[in-house]
Amino acid sequence: MGLLVVGSIALDSVETPFGSTTDALGGSATFFAYAAAFFHPVQVVGVVGDDFPSAELDRLAERGVDLSGVEHARGASFRWKGRYSADFQNRETLDTQLGVFATFEPKLPEAFRRAKLVFLGNIDPTLQSNVLDQTETPDLVVCDTMNYWIQGAPELLLELMKRIDVLMVNDSEARQLSGDWNVYRSARWILDRGPKMVIIKQGEYGAFMVDETGVFCVPGYPLEEICDPTGAGDAFAGGFMGHLGRTGDLSPANMRRAMVFGSTTGSFAVERFSVERFLEIGPAEIAARARAFADLVHFDTTNGFDE
Amino acid sequence: MGLLVVGSIALDSVETPFGSTTDALGGSATFFAYAAAFFHPVQVVGVVGDDFPSAELDRLAERGVDLSGVEHARGASFRWKGRYSADFQNRETLDTQLGVFATFEPKLPEAFRRAKLVFLGNIDPTLQSNVLDQTETPDLVVCDTMNYWIQGAPELLLELMKRIDVLMVNDSEARQLSGDWNVYRSARWILDRGPKMVIIKQGEYGAFMVDETGVFCVPGYPLEEICDPTGAGDAFAGGFMGHLGRTGDLSPANMRRAMVFGSTTGSFAVERFSVERFLEIGPAEIAARARAFADLVHFDTTNGFDE
Repeated sequence: MGLLVVGSIALDSVETPFGSTTDALGGSATFFAYAAAFFHPVQVVGVVGDDFPSAELDRLAERGVDLSGVEHARGASFRWKGRYSADFQNRETLDTQLGVFATFEPKLPEAFRRAKLVFLGNIDPTLQSNVLDQTETPDLVVCDTMNYWIQGAPELLLELMKRIDVLMVNDSEARQLSGDWNVYRSARWILDRGPKMVIIKQGEYGAFMVDETGVFCVPGYPLEEICDPTGAGDAFAGGFMGHLGRTGDLSPANMRRAMVFGSTTGSFAVERFSVERFLEIGPAEIAARARAFADLVHFDTTNGFDE
Repeated sequence: MGLLVVGSIALDSVETPFGSTTDALGGSATFFAYAAAFFHPVQVVGVVGDDFPSAELDRLAERGVDLSGVEHARGASFRWKGRYSADFQNRETLDTQLGVFATFEPKLPEAFRRAKLVFLGNIDPTLQSNVLDQTETPDLVVCDTMNYWIQGAPELLLELMKRIDVLMVNDSEARQLSGDWNVYRSARWILDRGPKMVIIKQGEYGAFMVDETGVFCVPGYPLEEICDPTGAGDAFAGGFMGHLGRTGDLSPANMRRAMVFGSTTGSFAVERFSVERFLEIGPAEIAARARAFADLVHFDTTNGFDE
């Protein structure tokens, strides 16, 4: 079951209360691929400039990530620079240099076109749509977006929403998209416009999934130390879709498990800068934390629930 | 198993985007009692002025609430006036008139002193301490507080914390108390100062409980309509302790169930102004929503969790 992601491959410079990075590996496709590769091979579509460190690409390839869809363009790689507030509640973008990303036109290698699971990372909805045009018959298309496109290209997003299965956004994006402060009404607003399912991420508070059958919630994993929230949402998406890829099961019960694995990889992502945490852990750590989510929410209905 | 609450019995005037109330029934002891009375008889300690509508007290009494600890003092009842922002994320206090509450000295009737479950609602920590002095051997003492006391009487609170079993506060209060932005570290900071357990409420995001065995999370119930968040935390406490009262079981597993019943009564409280929602529902509605929480978080660990 081919698992495809299109998104940014970037060099991030991040300032947090606990330190900073310069030109560290980042980007939505990168975080996605690192997280998903614990579960299933990943096919990446993206672009890097001629200044991109090849060692980083080699390291991804060693993890089972197929980079044959990554274009090597002349020019500078995409760079993002940002700063987090002391409590991580606010993020300020200090600089964005699109570089080769400005003229990026995704081209899917032949082998990628038959991918059954497709993640459209947060890029221009025109490019997301182009990628969809190049796929054959995916079983599940999941799409992310952000305030920049919601404000700047709402019509394109609405068109795209008719073609996707799952919209995966954070709560402020869902509110902005629907124009409604209530996240559950916002989710319904989105469901009325195409997607069969909405996944809304709420940072430290966790995430929830809404479809016609109801709502499923996963709490945020209780972390006493957070180093850098960058990439958490894409790492969430990677764990979510990686689990679907390895199991080949799109049943509602398995979508719930995928939410838990997404929460797991998302929680690991924030424990270090860049993708560093993913270099320290393996499937055992991921399975252990995923199981910990079960205890985190478990209660039995033996006493008092049967009035 | 006697269940005692001390707290305010107030007349609230609330403005929300969806309407307003004037001198509606409010106060921490009131919301607590309404919620807890679905589960177990409640003993209330508090004070009302001679302007307090006796019909409201009669209605509480009809629900199995023992008001023999409510002092009738000469003067005006405690009044609070507040306004919520359009998205309910911010609350502004417009006016507070302490009235008879200014000179309130809680006096426990003889029968109340043997209460096994005690909830110290959000009042002056000196009064909370006085109430504790008058109890004999409670099995569980749960205490709420707020920013006003955290800022104004931190030493008193720290003394009180040595005498209670559970501190139940919201996340901003926990952060303020510990001086740490991370809520899980804040919880540990609190556990190091006396309480065996900390319950941290996070509004629409739910609540979690921390003790030496770990963390338990309950999501916020997905509500598409919210009318008035006033009293949600006290209604949470009422459901939590009411369930403990009716079951007489303070085991860790039952504390988790109590968290679910607290979340249930808290979620009902916000659906109408004042205590209005509690007049519309009964044990069947409460049990049904509590069971819905089980589905809201349930996933099975059959596939992918055993790497």
